[in-house]
Amino acid sequence: MWVEPCPDFSPEKPLFLCILANTQTAKIPNISAAGKSPELTDFTPAADAELVETGNAISISEPAMTPSGAPSPAVLTRASMLLTGIPCIFINSGLRIRPMIPTIDLNARPGGDIRKGHAVVDAFDIYKKSKALGEKLGKLSDFVIIGESVPGGTTTAMSVIRALGYDGKVSSSFPENPLGIKNRVVEEAMKYSGISFGSLRNRPLNAVESLGDPMMAAAAGLVEGLDTKTVLAGGTQMVSVLGIIKHLGLVRDVSIATTRYVTEDKSADFMKMTEKLGYRAFSADPGFGKSRRNGLRMYENGDVKEGVGAGGAMFAAAMMDFSQKEFREKTEEVCDSIFGI
Amino acid sequence: MWVEPCPDFSPEKPLFLCILANTQTAKIPNISAAGKSPELTDFTPAADAELVETGNAISISEPAMTPSGAPSPAVLTRASMLLTGIPCIFINSGLRIRPMIPTIDLNARPGGDIRKGHAVVDAFDIYKKSKALGEKLGKLSDFVIIGESVPGGTTTAMSVIRALGYDGKVSSSFPENPLGIKNRVVEEAMKYSGISFGSLRNRPLNAVESLGDPMMAAAAGLVEGLDTKTVLAGGTQMVSVLGIIKHLGLVRDVSIATTRYVTEDKSADFMKMTEKLGYRAFSADPGFGKSRRNGLRMYENGDVKEGVGAGGAMFAAAMMDFSQKEFREKTEEVCDSIFGI
Repeated sequence: MWVEPCPDFSPEKPLFLCILANTQTAKIPNISAAGKSPELTDFTPAADAELVETGNAISISEPAMTPSGAPSPAVLTRASMLLTGIPCIFINSGLRIRPMIPTIDLNARPGGDIRKGHAVVDAFDIYKKSKALGEKLGKLSDFVIIGESVPGGTTTAMSVIRALGYDGKVSSSFPENPLGIKNRVVEEAMKYSGISFGSLRNRPLNAVESLGDPMMAAAAGLVEGLDTKTVLAGGTQMVSVLGIIKHLGLVRDVSIATTRYVTEDKSADFMKMTEKLGYRAFSADPGFGKSRRNGLRMYENGDVKEGVGAGGAMFAAAMMDFSQKEFREKTEEVCDSIFGI
Repeated sequence: MWVEPCPDFSPEKPLFLCILANTQTAKIPNISAAGKSPELTDFTPAADAELVETGNAISISEPAMTPSGAPSPAVLTRASMLLTGIPCIFINSGLRIRPMIPTIDLNARPGGDIRKGHAVVDAFDIYKKSKALGEKLGKLSDFVIIGESVPGGTTTAMSVIRALGYDGKVSSSFPENPLGIKNRVVEEAMKYSGISFGSLRNRPLNAVESLGDPMMAAAAGLVEGLDTKTVLAGGTQMVSVLGIIKHLGLVRDVSIATTRYVTEDKSADFMKMTEKLGYRAFSADPGFGKSRRNGLRMYENGDVKEGVGAGGAMFAAAMMDFSQKEFREKTEEVCDSIFGI
């Protein structure tokens, strides 16, 4: 199987949600490769959403790819949505730039810089609104996959997971994981907010408020409200959400799906962390080594690892019995139409 | 039955949508009673949505009632949602004031003043985005009720319905229907845009673009995209949407539901128009003459006739076998908690 373990679900009304947010943390130099420059990360979530929805990243003028030339993981998500026909709805949980497509707007504020404290001033409010939204969507869907596009999100993930009392290295959108910088940022942030390792283990939403990003509050609130089978689609960012859920004491049928690029990332501890937290993890391999497109082959070097719920999108394709080859070819088609043949 | 004819539907996954928009047309003096003053109509849709969702009209400081003291029809919609448990999702199709609750944002512009032409510059774009949204929601729900909150909407309805070639008087949020003013505004608008009676019968979206409001494009687009059983919840505003749908040549399972206050309004032609257009119409009677609350008894005088999908909300309650008495008592409870006992 190209997704391990085999996704043994047969939902009637699956739904794919993708939470979008911006933070000032993403603008710390060398934190995020999800944007040509730190300032341009503001446009990345909007462009990702537009690309998945329309095949065209309307809000940016440059092609939707990393500086090295690998296409945005949004192409994988679009491929899966085209193959599976699963409805995909984006959630604005604090964007500076609104996408030019319909989104659910939580009326959340963009996140701050965790080094300056109170990174998500409205964390509790976002959680409450997102829970209410989840309660509604849970009446319509019996299986929800939740992805994210939040530049700088692995750094906020690292700080929250530490505040909850877990040690673990997080993944990166750069081929070379800038763990040194992330560590320094996280240490500075925790010091500024007077938070030590594990000191917020009983107050996970306070950890989000001080050190996290708005996506985390939205994702955790959704999981509580949905109260249906849920798969978090993402790498170490979604591991932090699992941590929040666990420490809130929520008992929900939730697992996590990501790409092989994250699960096999030696600079990060994805599998170790999900195991410690006690959740089921799925790993998806698009087999891009065999791709006819150079940009997709670059994924094999770690140029892109995850994003826009790409791992969960592959999970969805496998769940609906599409093969790795069908998925890869659809992704190539999506790339052809965006970047030319 | 308190809803006529009897709603003979048994959906599995019903959904209530409510489209919100503002226009400059609403600010023409004496056009709309949906707001304490013409300028304050900007706040009405946001406050309506907040009231339905939370029981509290967060965005306004004064009580959610007409100047005469009748509560907003949002209380009826809230009562129905509490009774039935049907998920209710609001759609922002061009608001000046965003509600403080999650909404689906179509990224539409607020409407202009129809006397100045190009009232909905993005009518075609709204239609397209709304259709795409409908396609997604149609995969989750098998029965969708679509309401609206658009101050000034009966005037834009009158102008669009005339451009499509139908004569008919529209209803009003005032006890005394200001048809003279509406007629003058509509005549001025049609003259300014060079549109005559029936001249846009083959181009209904152009009628919306010149003389309508953003809700109309969103509602029609949704109906096309949903492609499932749909009930438009509203008075003459939704009749104009039926006209648009018909003149677009869409073949869909769509009907309309409103209140007895609209169907029996002698100053308007609701029943005549729906019959002429060829759609099934439902009329709901909350029996407020028997209410213990003075504000609800005022509905019987025509102080409030419809809004926020109140007629469709009653339709939903009747469809799910709640009695008129249960509905009225729940509405009274909602009023008690908002306005005090």
